Amino acid sequence: MQNKQVKLIKRPTGVPLPSDFETVIAEVPEKLDEGDVLVQLEYLSIDPAMRGWMNAGKSYVPPVELGAVMRAVGAGKVIASQNEKYKAGNAVTGIFGVQEYYLAPQGKGLTKVDLQQAPLPTYLNILGMTGMSAYFCLLEVGQPKAGETVVVSGAAGAVGSIAGQIAKIKGCRVVGIAGGADKCKYLIEELGFDAAIDYKTGNLREQLKAACPQGIDVYFDNVGGEILDTVLTLINLKSRIAICGAISRYNDGAAKGPVNYLSLLVNRARMEGFVVFDWAGRYKEAAAEMAGWMKAGTLKSREAIVSGGVDQYLDTLMILFQGDKIGKLLLKL
Amino acid sequence: MQNKQVKLIKRPTGVPLPSDFETVIAEVPEKLDEGDVLVQLEYLSIDPAMRGWMNAGKSYVPPVELGAVMRAVGAGKVIASQNEKYKAGNAVTGIFGVQEYYLAPQGKGLTKVDLQQAPLPTYLNILGMTGMSAYFCLLEVGQPKAGETVVVSGAAGAVGSIAGQIAKIKGCRVVGIAGGADKCKYLIEELGFDAAIDYKTGNLREQLKAACPQGIDVYFDNVGGEILDTVLTLINLKSRIAICGAISRYNDGAAKGPVNYLSLLVNRARMEGFVVFDWAGRYKEAAAEMAGWMKAGTLKSREAIVSGGVDQYLDTLMILFQGDKIGKLLLKL
Repeated sequence: MQNKQVKLIKRPTGVPLPSDFETVIAEVPEKLDEGDVLVQLEYLSIDPAMRGWMNAGKSYVPPVELGAVMRAVGAGKVIASQNEKYKAGNAVTGIFGVQEYYLAPQGKGLTKVDLQQAPLPTYLNILGMTGMSAYFCLLEVGQPKAGETVVVSGAAGAVGSIAGQIAKIKGCRVVGIAGGADKCKYLIEELGFDAAIDYKTGNLREQLKAACPQGIDVYFDNVGGEILDTVLTLINLKSRIAICGAISRYNDGAAKGPVNYLSLLVNRARMEGFVVFDWAGRYKEAAAEMAGWMKAGTLKSREAIVSGGVDQYLDTLMILFQGDKIGKLLLKL
Repeated sequence: MQNKQVKLIKRPTGVPLPSDFETVIAEVPEKLDEGDVLVQLEYLSIDPAMRGWMNAGKSYVPPVELGAVMRAVGAGKVIASQNEKYKAGNAVTGIFGVQEYYLAPQGKGLTKVDLQQAPLPTYLNILGMTGMSAYFCLLEVGQPKAGETVVVSGAAGAVGSIAGQIAKIKGCRVVGIAGGADKCKYLIEELGFDAAIDYKTGNLREQLKAACPQGIDVYFDNVGGEILDTVLTLINLKSRIAICGAISRYNDGAAKGPVNYLSLLVNRARMEGFVVFDWAGRYKEAAAEMAGWMKAGTLKSREAIVSGGVDQYLDTLMILFQGDKIGKLLLKL
């Protein structure tokens, strides 16, 4: 059986190019060793973090090695197992890589998921790392209190749309920043945000000021760049800036820092970074709470699913950086 | 009796100029109203924060009004009083302004100090806002733990030299960054820092890396700019950057932000601003603890005292920005 794989063969400078990758065909082993589990992938999670994993150098996880299958979180079904914990047909998620089949030696790195509870894509979205990131970065780093104003950038994106809804559940005024009228409409009409700002039109600072008459207490940042700098001019005393990501910067070699960072001093405010893996010990608790909100209808999810298999990996990744989708981006294999 | 005053008459752009100020002679009232106290100033505290107070716009305190006496913390003696709480000869500190005499209506804004405990300049240094800034910014924002590595910039300056010594008292490895060999020698030989780096010579990052073999857990920042950016490349997981000031930036209109701020994300680190006035309720406690350390010889202070009266105000302020002194800068009247 053939396994199509996408390997990283060159470290991109700026925007990743087709020449940074190579598609190869590997063989899936005919016979599994004792303990091994073979997974056929159905969905890949396409994440901004992927861009960082392509860079050399120290980060919160090691970079993808040159010549290795590109790292990706995926979901799929067990199709063969020599491990008593897993049976053919079990739905699982894990860091499977950009490929069609994943061989889990001794079943390591697999998480079983229950398709009675939610469909497979949800486990890469609200009930996966995406939801965990929104939940812990908002609640633990942002620490919103009822009545406070929470601003979310990349608000129609995977993490941002969940973070904003959780802030609403917690009784905050929630203002989303997104690119384009459709996304803004989605935030207000579908997700119940109090205000939505299209950063592509009009003066961002004036729009933000109007949408946040009480100033900004929590900023959930997915984008960095000029939006962060503008928010810094409107933060309140003792406000919290939760740095969940900075998608505007990932392809930007000659990057700028937040010029207005001294607003942190003036306002005794805090800017703090976040990596979801630190909270692994509490994923179950968060998933249970979010599943409850989904059942109650206060937390909605949307996936933007691209078809076409691993050949579409790079094109799909580019959709992320072009900001041209609503909700969680998945590649269907 | 004549009272020479320095008034702010123009908001400086960049470096303050003589034309931004005006020296005037006012009259000290011959007779005090009931409750009033008249203070003759002996020392003015010359602080980086003064530059910020000259700017228009929202900050942690209102700007100095144009035409008003320039704001300054001072120390002096009561020379006349119609207030039973104060007697002629009492030593006091307060926000007296750049002038020779301060009339305290109803004695408001005066803090009595005890010259048996420490000489008057100490109350503008370790036992004043300077010491309070070092104490609370290091301990409450930086939260150093014994064995951690603490880096202090502006380390031979007023706040930095105290912060570094307190970090030593708390059992940390302390690395100071200062400009020039004399200052570095002072940090090591007089104050007991573990290492001192002259940012004016050699490669800052390489020197810092060598001086911090375990990485940086706490950065006490007085300067901002490129030093902050370099430190960001060497911070540890869960490290804390305490923003006490940013003297490199106060005169810099076209300022740059910290380009490497995403190191906060990667390291789940925190950058947090600080304003000393938030801690007013605990000044006494801090002063008592620091007085104890001074008595024990583990906390030393030095003042750089410039003579010449209020006419020397602007020249003395410039010494701060040129970085050409060790310890706390005071103007003697």
